[in-house]
Amino acid sequence: MKHTDIFDVLKKPELLGQEVTVCGWVRTFRDSSAVCFLELADGTSFPRLQVVIDKKALDVDAECTKLGASVKVTGEVVKAFKGDGHELNAKEVTLLGKCPPDYPIQKKRTTLEFLRGIPHLRLRTNTFNAVFRVRSVAAQAVHRYFHEHRYYYIQTPLITASDCEGAGEMFRVTTQPYNAKYESEAEYYKNDFFGVKAGLSVSGQLEGEVAAMAFSKIYTFGPSFRAENSNTTRHLAEFWHIEPEVAFAELPDIIEIAEDMIKYLIRAVLEECPDEINFFDSFVEKGLKAKLEHVATSDFAICDYTDAISIFQKADVKFQYPVDWGCDLQTEHEKYLTEVVFKRPVFVTNYPKEIKSFYMKQNPDGKTVAATDLLVPGIGEIIGCSEREADYDKLLAAMKARNMDISAYKQYLDLRIFGSVPHSGFGLGFDRFVMYVTGMENIRDVVLFPRTVNNIM
Amino acid sequence: MKHTDIFDVLKKPELLGQEVTVCGWVRTFRDSSAVCFLELADGTSFPRLQVVIDKKALDVDAECTKLGASVKVTGEVVKAFKGDGHELNAKEVTLLGKCPPDYPIQKKRTTLEFLRGIPHLRLRTNTFNAVFRVRSVAAQAVHRYFHEHRYYYIQTPLITASDCEGAGEMFRVTTQPYNAKYESEAEYYKNDFFGVKAGLSVSGQLEGEVAAMAFSKIYTFGPSFRAENSNTTRHLAEFWHIEPEVAFAELPDIIEIAEDMIKYLIRAVLEECPDEINFFDSFVEKGLKAKLEHVATSDFAICDYTDAISIFQKADVKFQYPVDWGCDLQTEHEKYLTEVVFKRPVFVTNYPKEIKSFYMKQNPDGKTVAATDLLVPGIGEIIGCSEREADYDKLLAAMKARNMDISAYKQYLDLRIFGSVPHSGFGLGFDRFVMYVTGMENIRDVVLFPRTVNNIM
Repeated sequence: MKHTDIFDVLKKPELLGQEVTVCGWVRTFRDSSAVCFLELADGTSFPRLQVVIDKKALDVDAECTKLGASVKVTGEVVKAFKGDGHELNAKEVTLLGKCPPDYPIQKKRTTLEFLRGIPHLRLRTNTFNAVFRVRSVAAQAVHRYFHEHRYYYIQTPLITASDCEGAGEMFRVTTQPYNAKYESEAEYYKNDFFGVKAGLSVSGQLEGEVAAMAFSKIYTFGPSFRAENSNTTRHLAEFWHIEPEVAFAELPDIIEIAEDMIKYLIRAVLEECPDEINFFDSFVEKGLKAKLEHVATSDFAICDYTDAISIFQKADVKFQYPVDWGCDLQTEHEKYLTEVVFKRPVFVTNYPKEIKSFYMKQNPDGKTVAATDLLVPGIGEIIGCSEREADYDKLLAAMKARNMDISAYKQYLDLRIFGSVPHSGFGLGFDRFVMYVTGMENIRDVVLFPRTVNNIM
Repeated sequence: MKHTDIFDVLKKPELLGQEVTVCGWVRTFRDSSAVCFLELADGTSFPRLQVVIDKKALDVDAECTKLGASVKVTGEVVKAFKGDGHELNAKEVTLLGKCPPDYPIQKKRTTLEFLRGIPHLRLRTNTFNAVFRVRSVAAQAVHRYFHEHRYYYIQTPLITASDCEGAGEMFRVTTQPYNAKYESEAEYYKNDFFGVKAGLSVSGQLEGEVAAMAFSKIYTFGPSFRAENSNTTRHLAEFWHIEPEVAFAELPDIIEIAEDMIKYLIRAVLEECPDEINFFDSFVEKGLKAKLEHVATSDFAICDYTDAISIFQKADVKFQYPVDWGCDLQTEHEKYLTEVVFKRPVFVTNYPKEIKSFYMKQNPDGKTVAATDLLVPGIGEIIGCSEREADYDKLLAAMKARNMDISAYKQYLDLRIFGSVPHSGFGLGFDRFVMYVTGMENIRDVVLFPRTVNNIM
């Protein structure tokens, strides 16, 4: 069906005075004595198109005026009566699909919780239309950023036999029936699809390092999985993960890249989604726009973990969890540091090696690793980042100290044998980033069909 | 480590005469009486950088000249002795990482099969460097194409409780131990992570339709899974899938979109990867470049299934599988049609409804559906495409005729109740597309870490 996007009808000056055909869904209907008004949405534009129907000239099927009905309208593009946009004077209105009165999306405000129960219809509301426009624009900006900086986009495997030690609980993948019976675990897996135990990847980092050792700059942007039994507003069993890996980059280099990327993404959203950000600023998080503009223009702070610990110990507030050098930071500490002390995003660097992963570069002090987390006001940790241990002997020692199965990491160790180089990378949870830039407070509301424990609608 | 990409050193005229530092891996080393030559690769460029070392002026550590070693070189950018590129007169060469003589990637040609056994190192060869450059450029072009045409990029769930009926065998996802014992299947799944049986998605189409009913034009670009026990050169257990879905599009509209997209992707690869395509044309598939240029500029043919059957029946060749109206096409028929009859890509349209899926729009003849496959010379089917059944009653009847569990498709059916519209979509296997544009004959050679039956390296 040849038709014009509502985005173009609303914004393109060359369409003024032209006859166009649009297709869309009825979002509101108002009737007066001489004319009636349909507000149409087709999803290409956050603002909707007002269709003006002259009742004397045009007799419209009542089904075309029902909330949620789909229609095709041909008419003339004219200047809007209010504002500086365009509206459409209808010449012909055709019904495409009826919508009965039990349509669950009504004009009155509904709760986000109610809408979570109808994921296939909630996308038609203003809020979700705005969320997924921002999500798409941000995802495009991710690809554009890395492409402009000459990174390869690679696809790391999701089904994996390794477990990226310590990153989280894994789902198991199998083609065996639920009640398969074998004499031993070994027999079970020998007869499974891959011939060994397989699971869903929690991170593409190890394979990303493989690619960076050939292409210098790579990134992944794909799903990762965590089978954690945590029912919070920030955790998903399936999430989208951005993981760049950069050869010849040391910790300060990758910190610079992470800051540059975050600012680029935020600028892209501010520039490409002004209507949506204004909407979120008005209805979801007051001050969102100023927050994003501030982050896009301020220098991020860098604070050594050891300094952060003194800050907490001297702080005038009582933390629920007391801090000592060596402990992991809790959300309360992260929020205090980024919201109260620095009032901007802050990289906390050089964590104690005991609370971080085996693959992180060991600092000369023997106590800390060249790792950093980026904390942002309002959400806490958003990026986990480190320089990787490039020295074979040190890496092997760290793995042995953790009682890891060395034989499962032969490829990974090989990278330290054949032309090892300094390299660094980070991981950004894309869904959390979308929460941050939209102000949405529940991660289930920035994902099309969220997967959490006991929830797979 | 501050350094310059080899891509820039080779191509940027403003660097001529400048001192730069590059980092990379030694790919070849040649020694003569007065000078020696290192060829360096850092992955940012398909051509490598020649580093010239004046032996009188500079004493270089022998480890820096070993194949596979990683080095940092500072020197002056000068015009290359041969050709119109640049080379580097070394002033300082520093070893970053040694490479012992048992490095498996040697200068002599090795087989692709041997390289499949070392997926973590094969990326460092010319062939794989070229494959993954093309793959990344093509992936970027996918996103750019859809963004330019105002599609939303959406992420459909990979863990799913539905099975997109008929698309293929599914992997099961579980957190139960291999030897979990329950009284019944229901008990087993009730105690599993999601509380119901869950598997890995074979297609994001059904969720894509949900999104298209709110945003008009959407696409997915993410992994899909098939647990099929087929050990061929064209099948993977995990592959990347591009699935656009377009509201208000009927079959001829979506055919136009598919043709436009394929040509856009091919033009992007030809323009952005000239060195790589020349390499494949010389060493992998003679005539590749001409083939791609032909496809990018020729109109694709459209051939009704019924006409295709007459063509096969009148053909002067003996097919292994005889054809009759109603049968599915085999690779031999597809190749004959696209390579012998049309000599260009061809859309075969309006297949018998019995051999196609429940969700395809039923044509008025009562026998066929508004579905099409795009066949391309050299590879056969590359796109599966259809208009979707938008009529509730017809869709329900088709599901009942297939004995499907209607209750599992409530959301999908709802789309036909609340403002149904004509819509269409297609699926393109990205890995097969990469095979097509590189000429690589085994799908395992266009994927970083391919997953197939009994193979999860």
